[in-house]
Amino acid sequence: MPRLPKSIENLINALSRLPGVGPRTSARFVFYLMSCPQEELENLAQNIKELKNNITTCTICGIFSETSPCKTCANPRRNHELICVIARPQDLEAIEKTQEYDGLYHILNGTINPLQGIGPSALRIKELEQRLKASPPQEIILALNPDMEGETTVLYLTKLLKPYNIKLSRLARGLPVGGELEYADEITISSALKGRKEI
Amino acid sequence: MPRLPKSIENLINALSRLPGVGPRTSARFVFYLMSCPQEELENLAQNIKELKNNITTCTICGIFSETSPCKTCANPRRNHELICVIARPQDLEAIEKTQEYDGLYHILNGTINPLQGIGPSALRIKELEQRLKASPPQEIILALNPDMEGETTVLYLTKLLKPYNIKLSRLARGLPVGGELEYADEITISSALKGRKEI
Repeated sequence: MPRLPKSIENLINALSRLPGVGPRTSARFVFYLMSCPQEELENLAQNIKELKNNITTCTICGIFSETSPCKTCANPRRNHELICVIARPQDLEAIEKTQEYDGLYHILNGTINPLQGIGPSALRIKELEQRLKASPPQEIILALNPDMEGETTVLYLTKLLKPYNIKLSRLARGLPVGGELEYADEITISSALKGRKEI
Repeated sequence: MPRLPKSIENLINALSRLPGVGPRTSARFVFYLMSCPQEELENLAQNIKELKNNITTCTICGIFSETSPCKTCANPRRNHELICVIARPQDLEAIEKTQEYDGLYHILNGTINPLQGIGPSALRIKELEQRLKASPPQEIILALNPDMEGETTVLYLTKLLKPYNIKLSRLARGLPVGGELEYADEITISSALKGRKEI
């Protein structure tokens, strides 16, 4: 079998380690890169090499940031009485896009997942407790994914944080806007029924 | 809105140029890379930078190769009377994996796609004609995707290559192995009916 040049194979192997990327997608990426001018490849290589330069994690919320505390945690115009607990940095972006939230964040760096061996101690839960002890907020919003791991984590945190006597809340469940009743699963519909609002 | 550090944003932008990758997938890639050790990032950067080093395209078949002619075209043990015309280098891999083909290849570098402004002159069709004139094979297999663009290209090539009096063939159409009749589309089923084989 005619083998691909070594440098192409190496990059296909390297890129197939990206989340959700298998060898075929990776090959597509590499053949695309083959068609790019060398300058673009060098820029990309530079970007990757310098990705973590000058980046630290905020000691308070745990987000990647150029400063610690990060701009959000250091911003006096944000509501410091409100902490939104999220699993991953991407979730912060998603919530900020709504422009409806002006509180602080706390990033767990994942959710409890026994199958993958991720227990509470692997998450930034101790840091959350320290934070609550240092300056307890009025409310904590648990904004985790409505899936098995998210639910487990919500349950765990609810028990753990009860003694702090801080208001705990979670994101509403229901039909996604633009979604169709017909295609929604039963658990979503049942959540939407339970959480129905008077008009 | 708290912005992500510049280096993260830059890489998200750069990677979202990969085929089939939008800003969200790209962000997933970048956050994954953030969790990798610096050494791995530098290796990846190196791989990308050196991707096109020592790689040329075979002047005969058009595949990426360290030598020209490539190992396949230069291999006397392969059947030089058979040329398989394919759209992209990945298709070569797919065919080689069957271990059923021992002929040569010819890569078009795409298919005719008027909507994207890709006409016959953008493809390696002239090179194919030169090749046929220099040493006509016994058979040419047009192994293009069974989609609109592939069909158009097959039609174009069939007309163009007719005067050469070389046997032209195409891959069989029918139900994919492991597929289900119930879920196959009508055109596939009708192709499978037309191409039915006596048992």
